[in-house]
Amino acid sequence: MYRIGIDIGATNMRVALFNDAYQLMERAEQKTEAHLGVAQALEKLFDMIQQVDPNQFASGIGIGAPGPLDAAQGIILDAPNLPGWHGFRLKEAIFKRFGKPVFLTNDAKVAALAEAKLGAGKGCHTVQFITVSTGVGGGFVHCGELFSGFHGHASEVGNMIVDVSGGNTLEEVCSGTALLYESKRLFGNEKTAKDLFIAAKNHHSEAEGIVERWITHFSAGLTSMIQVLDPEIFVLGGAVMLRNPWLIKHLTDRVETLVYESMRSNVKLKLASLGEDAGLYGAAMLVKRRD
Amino acid sequence: MYRIGIDIGATNMRVALFNDAYQLMERAEQKTEAHLGVAQALEKLFDMIQQVDPNQFASGIGIGAPGPLDAAQGIILDAPNLPGWHGFRLKEAIFKRFGKPVFLTNDAKVAALAEAKLGAGKGCHTVQFITVSTGVGGGFVHCGELFSGFHGHASEVGNMIVDVSGGNTLEEVCSGTALLYESKRLFGNEKTAKDLFIAAKNHHSEAEGIVERWITHFSAGLTSMIQVLDPEIFVLGGAVMLRNPWLIKHLTDRVETLVYESMRSNVKLKLASLGEDAGLYGAAMLVKRRD
Repeated sequence: MYRIGIDIGATNMRVALFNDAYQLMERAEQKTEAHLGVAQALEKLFDMIQQVDPNQFASGIGIGAPGPLDAAQGIILDAPNLPGWHGFRLKEAIFKRFGKPVFLTNDAKVAALAEAKLGAGKGCHTVQFITVSTGVGGGFVHCGELFSGFHGHASEVGNMIVDVSGGNTLEEVCSGTALLYESKRLFGNEKTAKDLFIAAKNHHSEAEGIVERWITHFSAGLTSMIQVLDPEIFVLGGAVMLRNPWLIKHLTDRVETLVYESMRSNVKLKLASLGEDAGLYGAAMLVKRRD
Repeated sequence: MYRIGIDIGATNMRVALFNDAYQLMERAEQKTEAHLGVAQALEKLFDMIQQVDPNQFASGIGIGAPGPLDAAQGIILDAPNLPGWHGFRLKEAIFKRFGKPVFLTNDAKVAALAEAKLGAGKGCHTVQFITVSTGVGGGFVHCGELFSGFHGHASEVGNMIVDVSGGNTLEEVCSGTALLYESKRLFGNEKTAKDLFIAAKNHHSEAEGIVERWITHFSAGLTSMIQVLDPEIFVLGGAVMLRNPWLIKHLTDRVETLVYESMRSNVKLKLASLGEDAGLYGAAMLVKRRD
């Protein structure tokens, strides 16, 4: 069974055709240019779908897109990176054109699915994936299926409250955006989160303090997730993690001191392994086999 | 099918026989007297099982007991309220005597099962039960089954970290033990948590501050659970909640301000409805039907 996966990002849209073994057969990519409206974006998607699957082999089309979105109805909601797309009935538009089942879920969740089934979580029974990039998102994969929660909002982990006294959510302290802000504040407007991590490695004390605070907050979030969900493994992805894999060890050490003693030997954090393509693979996995 | 449910508490042990419709047919109760050792407690359990089910109708025996315990092996571990019971192979001892399947799980989880199936969560698809008494514990019931997590430690929510800056776990601020401590500190050694709540109602400013802090911390914990799990409903039990049902409204209002906007209309907290017997019912529910 062939499947199409679509990854819609703030900058690029990517479309790929996968065979039954999730081998990538064909791919296409175009700029999203969200600010130019949905009509042009939809035309580009139609073209790319046609291009990767000219003979219409695919049984269905899966899409990962930035949230918030209405997965059941297949509608883009208030995605901050897709200005002007609010209310865009993406699923309906693609179904009308191709007449195949279309599935839509947020980008962190499709990446979770891919990492759980083919990436760093392969072979694990339950995987909590967390992505730390512009924001902090995640997806919980249980027995090979995404756990979406009763209202479809499970794993919106960026809004976990880890610091009542400081008034901070996980995302407010741990996102790439928060690190970028701190880097600019300390080192000037042209600097990025990367400069902050370099300064911390060179023992710049304020930068060290910010990275230390990041580790403290993220460890608190991981600990709370362990206490609630007890996943077999955490897979951590997104630009902040992928560019700083050394953080994994620091987080593991810290979390081990925070969880209940009975859980200490079970703390298992791994770096995501599929890189940028996780979203494409995971989107294709949304297409269910029809038995 | 008949089932036996056993609830082992720090003070009392209760045993009941249930019919297929979970009607309580017979019950027995004796003092635990944990400090007198496990042999006398086991004899009492044997007597009570014999007493409620003299003709051995029951297909199996379910037990709820204070954690931590090893559910898979059926062993009591370091339960602070059961001194001297460490390593007690409860499941094996009862199986040897009666030759029926025996199931052991922690008391918060069996109460969760009962509240989800027969109590305040009846008819709901996913229920997060939280009990606030001596400690803070919980159980997540998904499609009628307890979700235990990969290592059997899901829903140990007392150790969620909600206050990095203040250095507090949920249990450290929100348990009955924490409230009792504050009450004694403010009003004298003979006072209880109840006096603290009365003083707060009478606008004693320090007491008000402590209750406010309790609401703030507990709301943070609930919010994080919503963001991770997105349950259909929370059922809140345990002495602190059952004696102060007015807290439900305060918690609901607060949590609604903390969750992502898309979740605001879905915040649903209810008071547990089975009272003290939740543990007995839930223990019986551990006994699986043999099809």
